[in-house]
Amino acid sequence: MAERALRWYGWGYADTTYSLEHRPGAWPYLQERLGLPDDEHTPPVDPATITLRPSRAPEVALAALRLALGEDGVSTADEVRLAHSLGKSYLDAVALRRGQVPNPTDAVVFPASEEAVQQVLALAAAHGLAVAPFGGGTSVVGGVEPRGAKPTVTLSLARLNQVLAVDTFSYTVTAQAGVLGPDLERALNDRDLTVAHSPQSFEFSTLGGWIAARGAGQTSTKYGKIEDKVISLRMVTPAGVVETPRVPASATGPSLLQMLVGSEGVYGVITQATLRLAPLPRVTRGRAFMFKDFASGQAAVRALLQTGFRPAVVRLSDEAETRTLYALRETAHGWRALRQQLGLGALSRAGQSFENGAVLILRFEGDDFRTEVEEGQGRSVCRALGGFDLGSGLAHGWYRDRYHTPYLREVLFDRGVLLDVVETATEWDNVAALHARVQAALTQAIVATGSKALVMCHLSHAYTDGASLYFTFLAHANHRHEPEQWQVIKDAATDCIVRSGGTLSHHHGVGHDSARWMPAETGAAGMLALRAVKAALDPEGVMNPGKLLGTE
Amino acid sequence: MAERALRWYGWGYADTTYSLEHRPGAWPYLQERLGLPDDEHTPPVDPATITLRPSRAPEVALAALRLALGEDGVSTADEVRLAHSLGKSYLDAVALRRGQVPNPTDAVVFPASEEAVQQVLALAAAHGLAVAPFGGGTSVVGGVEPRGAKPTVTLSLARLNQVLAVDTFSYTVTAQAGVLGPDLERALNDRDLTVAHSPQSFEFSTLGGWIAARGAGQTSTKYGKIEDKVISLRMVTPAGVVETPRVPASATGPSLLQMLVGSEGVYGVITQATLRLAPLPRVTRGRAFMFKDFASGQAAVRALLQTGFRPAVVRLSDEAETRTLYALRETAHGWRALRQQLGLGALSRAGQSFENGAVLILRFEGDDFRTEVEEGQGRSVCRALGGFDLGSGLAHGWYRDRYHTPYLREVLFDRGVLLDVVETATEWDNVAALHARVQAALTQAIVATGSKALVMCHLSHAYTDGASLYFTFLAHANHRHEPEQWQVIKDAATDCIVRSGGTLSHHHGVGHDSARWMPAETGAAGMLALRAVKAALDPEGVMNPGKLLGTE
Repeated sequence: MAERALRWYGWGYADTTYSLEHRPGAWPYLQERLGLPDDEHTPPVDPATITLRPSRAPEVALAALRLALGEDGVSTADEVRLAHSLGKSYLDAVALRRGQVPNPTDAVVFPASEEAVQQVLALAAAHGLAVAPFGGGTSVVGGVEPRGAKPTVTLSLARLNQVLAVDTFSYTVTAQAGVLGPDLERALNDRDLTVAHSPQSFEFSTLGGWIAARGAGQTSTKYGKIEDKVISLRMVTPAGVVETPRVPASATGPSLLQMLVGSEGVYGVITQATLRLAPLPRVTRGRAFMFKDFASGQAAVRALLQTGFRPAVVRLSDEAETRTLYALRETAHGWRALRQQLGLGALSRAGQSFENGAVLILRFEGDDFRTEVEEGQGRSVCRALGGFDLGSGLAHGWYRDRYHTPYLREVLFDRGVLLDVVETATEWDNVAALHARVQAALTQAIVATGSKALVMCHLSHAYTDGASLYFTFLAHANHRHEPEQWQVIKDAATDCIVRSGGTLSHHHGVGHDSARWMPAETGAAGMLALRAVKAALDPEGVMNPGKLLGTE
Repeated sequence: MAERALRWYGWGYADTTYSLEHRPGAWPYLQERLGLPDDEHTPPVDPATITLRPSRAPEVALAALRLALGEDGVSTADEVRLAHSLGKSYLDAVALRRGQVPNPTDAVVFPASEEAVQQVLALAAAHGLAVAPFGGGTSVVGGVEPRGAKPTVTLSLARLNQVLAVDTFSYTVTAQAGVLGPDLERALNDRDLTVAHSPQSFEFSTLGGWIAARGAGQTSTKYGKIEDKVISLRMVTPAGVVETPRVPASATGPSLLQMLVGSEGVYGVITQATLRLAPLPRVTRGRAFMFKDFASGQAAVRALLQTGFRPAVVRLSDEAETRTLYALRETAHGWRALRQQLGLGALSRAGQSFENGAVLILRFEGDDFRTEVEEGQGRSVCRALGGFDLGSGLAHGWYRDRYHTPYLREVLFDRGVLLDVVETATEWDNVAALHARVQAALTQAIVATGSKALVMCHLSHAYTDGASLYFTFLAHANHRHEPEQWQVIKDAATDCIVRSGGTLSHHHGVGHDSARWMPAETGAAGMLALRAVKAALDPEGVMNPGKLLGTE
């Protein structure tokens, strides 16, 4: 299979873009909401003009690494270093588009075995280098950029990408950490099995990355986050290999597994994991509902979860996001346009509209009969709680486009828009208050930077006891001062989240960008415990400095 | 409510016993299987004859504790010390029945606030004492007996037993760690909510104990083990109070919560926790099936779990346990006897019997219609895979008696029987092999101690990827050498489990009795991590020495 080129300065495949042309309402809407000029054009620089700081890795260390991994296992080429120095955050995008990469990695290594990973860590310790693990490089919180004073070797998991065993008896898969989402699913789907883990980065992110960042997928409300799916893992640490027992559940002390899931490379390198599988669903049913407001929609989602429903997708947009989704819709033609108009007419007669309501997307998955029962009863609950049934089209469209939407970012970055997200989770009794506070904090901060603000939110995952909130915010970028502008907004949002009972992250992780707030959530004694594990497994501070546990 | 007296030397309420009289087949069966004499009688000693080693707690320390907690907050009375020096393991029962308690606690304290717990830990550190937390004292793995060289203060959670908040909006309950199972459920059930956590110790064990031991309940196949139910906890450690965030899910680094759940008092004292709740089920459906052997029953359970069924109870007995359950049945009279005979006739015509088969107990719980659908489809799966439908009586009887069965222990201990359990869990592809190996190891070890062996097993909890195995073993006790005999059997079983891919414990925990095998399951680097947390949170080694992390 020929490898499809990735966009060097941003999200996704180089050959894919998000078309504003088929969405005639999109740009006028954003222009008006954000006060954008007509003609702003902020494209990326020509990559040929980028000059990276020369590698600081000592030649003797590089020679030792080449001896261990082979010539093609080590690279200091600028192109390779550039592709492994940043993730996919807004700050990363700004840096790449400007062609200014302040912290390039000093070398990239491609170990092809766990032993080779061990050698890299040993050589790094011996030569005073830091090691930054790199899976798919899709971190949006500064998880891969080299930090700290030491020269950094970025350890790519690209060659540790094999599916090792599919156990159709125990419904498990064991794979190396560098396997990409599509390759993992390909090994399973023709046996009617699935990991059912589909983060928006699915095509580009790795098993190890999902585990390191404690990620979620879009269907995690039914199937669980990655920490619920992982049965065991192997991690190479400077103090040795940790392998957690491969058992379905245990009372053998604290969970060593859950001490490592979410460690973001600061303890060691995840090299392999075993996940539990689900049967590939034979039935999928999508349905959308319009609620008069975000609060009414929340009540329906809460009722569903608390009475035992487990939809695969529960995605409830607040009023601002509902309005924006509508403004960004593709133009319909022919019958589709007519059907849409008839639907909008009925919605309007029901006293609701996309201009002022909250749209809920549900998706039920499973075997045939029980799923149909669940979907039918779920629809009844939504209707009983004031939901206007929008049919299946919107839900199916959202599902079809779920990996395409991030490409919009690039189009907007080209036109001088600042766009980023923050996400959190909280208990139901705090969902409404947290939503209001973070929305206000983001809006105020954006306005303080001199821009109009577009702040929208959806509830992305639901639990019996609470839900996640996923905020998207847009502003007119302060050209040449984007990082400073972004930091003002990020600080305001994150301060608000940790002060208001939200978690620092529900599924993106902490990385460098949120590490400053770790003690606020974890507490002094909790930080003692996390740092003790770090000191035990990585006594010389080789692993991924400046991430998660501190910015030092 | 008048407090009901507990049996000082063994399990449960003093006024409750297990009647062999109504089970005429029981004793002859056991006598024959174990080669027991007619007249062996090994009752407990008169407790008045027990002399405890005098308290080793320095008077100055006791004075300081009394100052902090009040006079009635500290006791060195022999009766109180005796009641807090041992748990409910076989070794504990032998020690109490003999009246020989080698490691009595030196004082028992009853803090009534979290601040008082902090004071106890600080005073213990200052005076060179160890602290052993004590919830319900139902550990069956030596979790509460004082160990190590230091004088020990046993910290009872009995006064920290309040339900603090029932949140009917978020479906959560926050309670102090010392609350007993029935008191917790009482605060919830009239609001149609439940924790749905019912270990066999339910009536006597505490929320904190469940969490400290990472326990399961009999309905955990549907509702999850305690680690799946706990949202957050507070733990007083010598290094400070750890409070984990109260959020439904998080990607904020490793799970601090899951680093503490299962820590068995070696890091600190759990003082409070918040749990997620389930709706009190409106429908419960019990059903039993007979399979021709344990393997066929496993196939049915595996099929159920892997196609998305979540029965509350999945309990599959192997052939030896099925035979024993039948031998221990109560005599039926009148219509019940006739119905039973008709049922046995049909079973026999189907080529199956209790003498040579595997009985599966299922219980479905939930709302009305979806539960009925699940139960109906679940029955179809069992029948299609060779299960003979035994109706609902056996399942209901088992459920009704689920807290009564442990009283049988005491009756058998009175008659010279050694009885204990080991439990584990493994992936489906290893369930049959692990069962065979542990069964053989237990049998061989018992025979080596000069007794005939009765070894039986049931699968007590099921997962998509595996199941737990719960072994009960009986032998003719070597009078006056019970501990030595028991140790031979325990060593053989546990060596076998850790060598054969089972976990050291699925829900009883590790305590002192299994601590020796922790490194075999956890590995050297894993032990480094666990011990680093211990050193960070309890730098002076105050907390529960000799448990979990080492017998030192």
